[in-house]
Amino acid sequence: MTTMTAGPEGENAHGGPSPLRAHAEHLDRFDPLARYRGEFVFDDAPRIYLDGNSLGRLPGRTAERLAAAVHEEWGRQLIASWGRGWVDAPRRLGERLAPLIGAAPGQVVVSDSTTVNLYKLAGAALDARPDRPKVVTDALNFPSDLYTLQSVVRGAREGASLQVVPARADDPTPDLPALTAAVDETTALVVLSHVTFKSGYLHDAEAVAARAREVGAWVLWDLSHSVGVVPIELDAWGAELAVGCTYKYLNGGPGAPAFLYVRRDLQDRLRSPVEGWFGRRAPFGFDLDFDPADGVGRFLVGTPPVLSMLAIEAGLNPLEEAGLAAVREKSVRLTRLLVELYDARLARLGFALGSPRDERRRGSHVSLRHPDGYRINRALIDAGVVPDFREPDTLRFGLAPLYTRFVDVWEAVERLVAIVEGGSHHGYDDRRSAVT
Amino acid sequence: MTTMTAGPEGENAHGGPSPLRAHAEHLDRFDPLARYRGEFVFDDAPRIYLDGNSLGRLPGRTAERLAAAVHEEWGRQLIASWGRGWVDAPRRLGERLAPLIGAAPGQVVVSDSTTVNLYKLAGAALDARPDRPKVVTDALNFPSDLYTLQSVVRGAREGASLQVVPARADDPTPDLPALTAAVDETTALVVLSHVTFKSGYLHDAEAVAARAREVGAWVLWDLSHSVGVVPIELDAWGAELAVGCTYKYLNGGPGAPAFLYVRRDLQDRLRSPVEGWFGRRAPFGFDLDFDPADGVGRFLVGTPPVLSMLAIEAGLNPLEEAGLAAVREKSVRLTRLLVELYDARLARLGFALGSPRDERRRGSHVSLRHPDGYRINRALIDAGVVPDFREPDTLRFGLAPLYTRFVDVWEAVERLVAIVEGGSHHGYDDRRSAVT
Repeated sequence: MTTMTAGPEGENAHGGPSPLRAHAEHLDRFDPLARYRGEFVFDDAPRIYLDGNSLGRLPGRTAERLAAAVHEEWGRQLIASWGRGWVDAPRRLGERLAPLIGAAPGQVVVSDSTTVNLYKLAGAALDARPDRPKVVTDALNFPSDLYTLQSVVRGAREGASLQVVPARADDPTPDLPALTAAVDETTALVVLSHVTFKSGYLHDAEAVAARAREVGAWVLWDLSHSVGVVPIELDAWGAELAVGCTYKYLNGGPGAPAFLYVRRDLQDRLRSPVEGWFGRRAPFGFDLDFDPADGVGRFLVGTPPVLSMLAIEAGLNPLEEAGLAAVREKSVRLTRLLVELYDARLARLGFALGSPRDERRRGSHVSLRHPDGYRINRALIDAGVVPDFREPDTLRFGLAPLYTRFVDVWEAVERLVAIVEGGSHHGYDDRRSAVT
Repeated sequence: MTTMTAGPEGENAHGGPSPLRAHAEHLDRFDPLARYRGEFVFDDAPRIYLDGNSLGRLPGRTAERLAAAVHEEWGRQLIASWGRGWVDAPRRLGERLAPLIGAAPGQVVVSDSTTVNLYKLAGAALDARPDRPKVVTDALNFPSDLYTLQSVVRGAREGASLQVVPARADDPTPDLPALTAAVDETTALVVLSHVTFKSGYLHDAEAVAARAREVGAWVLWDLSHSVGVVPIELDAWGAELAVGCTYKYLNGGPGAPAFLYVRRDLQDRLRSPVEGWFGRRAPFGFDLDFDPADGVGRFLVGTPPVLSMLAIEAGLNPLEEAGLAAVREKSVRLTRLLVELYDARLARLGFALGSPRDERRRGSHVSLRHPDGYRINRALIDAGVVPDFREPDTLRFGLAPLYTRFVDVWEAVERLVAIVEGGSHHGYDDRRSAVT
């Protein structure tokens, strides 16, 4: 009477469990990270949240820590708190993040937004290399990074230029031969997203470093989509510079401040284009002339947003305890499952895989493209599954390993199948809202 | 047997009330703003906090609002909150602040730190005026502003320069004739702190504007020490640009994001030197080229720190209800009382008044200088009164009108008297800690 497709409840038409669901449940049963799910707040249950690549979930300890910071540190101790952990927060938090990005101590601080940090570091690099006019990036990089690099180049000395290596149509991977060719002896800096925001392509950092080294270019990584979920070895790669955000897989909260990395040997050679008191030697001396702090601290600028910093700090424990190797292993299994389910259930429904099949080249989100992607995304959210949408046709499924179950992935795919087979997405307007 | 000095308990040696204390109590009794004290958290009672010019107290509603933002907006609604008030926060909060600085709608946004905003606006102004190489400021300006202007000028076109009008020794007021002379036909921009951070000098904004207009210079005000406590009329003054912080008299919390103002007719002529997606037209279109938003929104840059923004917003109600005129009136009375008490009680103890006597030229903090200032500051904190210290010899007493009582001022002075007369400050080390 009915067909053999699995329904959203995980049973096929004959009442038996779906073998795909059973597979997902098996993976959950033997998931060594399963217990970390309890470290996060799930007040939105039973929604399936697959957007931790955009905004990580609230860690339970963060809510407690913020309340204490507000009531005790701000409310009671007031300015005395500056000397009891606030002034040090940008450096202290940098040291906390350093092991997550393969950095020895003394090279990372937390400060400003990713964009402002990119501006500071790219500007400093271009200034430090007057014989090299070119910055190279690729079109898979986050558009805001391109905007910032455009502004850096516009404000730099005459002759500075930005080369954006074009993407290949419908290809989730960059045009690597073209990228290699673009990086040449005139290149001051290569700026790439370690994991690209849309396709989730994971750059081969060692290959990029090797090419850059050949011609003497520096490399600046935007780690926003890889930090906390992909192993990163900045020191081992010989990377010169890096920036990244803290509100995705680090779960630091909406718009939490970003971090920056400057390789130790470069720190005292570089000057930030934007200087302020927190980057000064002895900031509370109130001398009239700027004198940059030794080390990476010179890239701090204004008064740091303390509450947001403390929120980041409080959320790092689960990740540190689990360890990045285990997190990466689960991440690969999660994205693998989604690709398998795409093959089994979605390819026939007009979806195209917008992410690499090669697991070594894939971050922790999977993009699925569909001509009706915008409407399907709206329908899926109403069906209790939260991905996000990126123009023109991409649904992104972020699979944050600390709190995403394999069965969540299965469930999300089945709800997608039900929507597209049932055509319920046709009831949604295709007009974009301001925020997608 | 004892001398006639009033003791810290407010009674003189004969057990009668001190007439100065009685005066302070009278002022409190008829203070129309007295009820706003209840809007703030006083978990540190019975301390007397006189540093609201550095970090404003925690408004009660802010703690509640932050908890709701964390649990409901981040914890439960997650990314959906971006479309429900987060993306709009920088502009919405700008419109909330606009009436406090005399700005018609559409000219203010909240973004980044004061330093980064100063960098953006000063850089944009210098770029827009290629025929005018000079930026003028004075040595009473906040040192971080000087650092930032130094970096702006260093990164600008060849020939750009910064002229810092020197301060006069031991004078809390700027050298106005020298400032007037420095502002000439080669001046692109004059950058001044509306109220100076150390002496509390309140610039005559109309006089500065008149001089600037004479020679065609633009004016950029740093309103950090005046916003929320001194009436500001940017539109009426014809000011071109302004920046300011939100964590002093606006009580936005430690390191809360700053604001910036760009006069409407200049907005589409200026480009920020630092551009990112939040300053783009249609930021979620993810186009590869930057296209600045119309209006002041083009000066937004990266993802805003949402929790800190919501904290600012929640704290504004008491100020808006009280109204700036009443706040200024109480502020003048508070600083007047402190100056009177200085004359009556402190001048003979080696203190010097580090702030203007002219009330029209004084902000809401009063500086007292003393050769033993650092040690006296430490002793005073241990005696339950919290001012702050600025090198080399200045104690600053910030008198935030919404929660400071007149009797607090009297009490603080009496404890100062007791310390210096008793010599207890000699027991303190003179070596500076990193944070003062």
